[in-house]
Amino acid sequence: MSRQEQAARTRESIIDAAAEVFDTHGYQGAGLALILEQAGVTRGALYFHFASKEDLARELIEAQYRTVNQWAEDGVEGLQALINLTFTIARDLVADVRVRAGVRLALEQATFSAPVPNVYQSWIDAARAMLVEAKRRGELVRGVSVDDAARFVVGAFTGVQLASEVLTARQDIQERVADLWHFVLPALASSPQSMKYRQRRRAARAGSRT
Amino acid sequence: MSRQEQAARTRESIIDAAAEVFDTHGYQGAGLALILEQAGVTRGALYFHFASKEDLARELIEAQYRTVNQWAEDGVEGLQALINLTFTIARDLVADVRVRAGVRLALEQATFSAPVPNVYQSWIDAARAMLVEAKRRGELVRGVSVDDAARFVVGAFTGVQLASEVLTARQDIQERVADLWHFVLPALASSPQSMKYRQRRRAARAGSRT
Repeated sequence: MSRQEQAARTRESIIDAAAEVFDTHGYQGAGLALILEQAGVTRGALYFHFASKEDLARELIEAQYRTVNQWAEDGVEGLQALINLTFTIARDLVADVRVRAGVRLALEQATFSAPVPNVYQSWIDAARAMLVEAKRRGELVRGVSVDDAARFVVGAFTGVQLASEVLTARQDIQERVADLWHFVLPALASSPQSMKYRQRRRAARAGSRT
Repeated sequence: MSRQEQAARTRESIIDAAAEVFDTHGYQGAGLALILEQAGVTRGALYFHFASKEDLARELIEAQYRTVNQWAEDGVEGLQALINLTFTIARDLVADVRVRAGVRLALEQATFSAPVPNVYQSWIDAARAMLVEAKRRGELVRGVSVDDAARFVVGAFTGVQLASEVLTARQDIQERVADLWHFVLPALASSPQSMKYRQRRRAARAGSRT
């Protein structure tokens, strides 16, 4: 392994360790010593890659933006793309500790220190772009504001996944996201019945078992 | 002032100070020294009333349950009672630091330490009771599950107020709660048009200015 490959591998293992520790202890509770122990690296190695705990947290939060953009490009467009995205995030919240840590850190920023509106805003922007396309295709109820709808769906999704975490440690997250669409589609979709969300729930669940 | 009155007054001033400090710094960041300084009391006086920082936090969280029950008894019943409740909480989140601290601490418990499902569950139970009454009155769409609806409304409200905090420091919270009902009522209410929520928003706003 080249020195460069070794460095890249160390960097990934630090991010994984930080994700585990942030996910378990939150930002305030996550000590750098615990991250070092979990990663099995020296303090020097960590500081070679990251300037601080904040820097590590930022990396995990920013990875969320990048993923949102990837998720958005899976061939499906419009309202169904937004529906699919919520189930994919729900699945990854269960399956991927980096996603879980990123969302937790984003919410911690929201609730605990100086909020960073960009995290939220980038989620809203991604939702809005899909709703604009949905509107162009005639998939939305006439007169719906794509701004209001994007902001509402992102806010509601945030709360629904948080409630699922509190009440069932996210075991019922797929059902709760299906409920979200059940309760929102009649106000949003010109043809709610043509949207797939109960099926999608099963598909996302199956995916999370692999 | 009797000694008893003096003690009660001290207790209230400690709760107010703790609410301010928890609201600003979160649970982890709230030092007991800061609460003492803000309240202008001695450490001994604080420990006379509260066993610990946790005990103070619990007092503020539990005050939320008590208030939910009071709010629920304002003469209006069924779905309109639930709608009104969300606008009242939204208003108090802006106007009352104890409510703000209580909700923040409840969410901190959710996201950061061992979650206390009771906080959430009591909100859901309160919403469910109003929806059961709404169903009895024929106000709900046929076949709606009051369990799913109660859980969804509480989850969505949580996320919507959180998004409003992040994006606008809760300045637009009344509009965002109105959006919630705009997007949910068609799936929930047999006669969405008969429910007052845009008007309610204005009333709650006027109330918060007094």
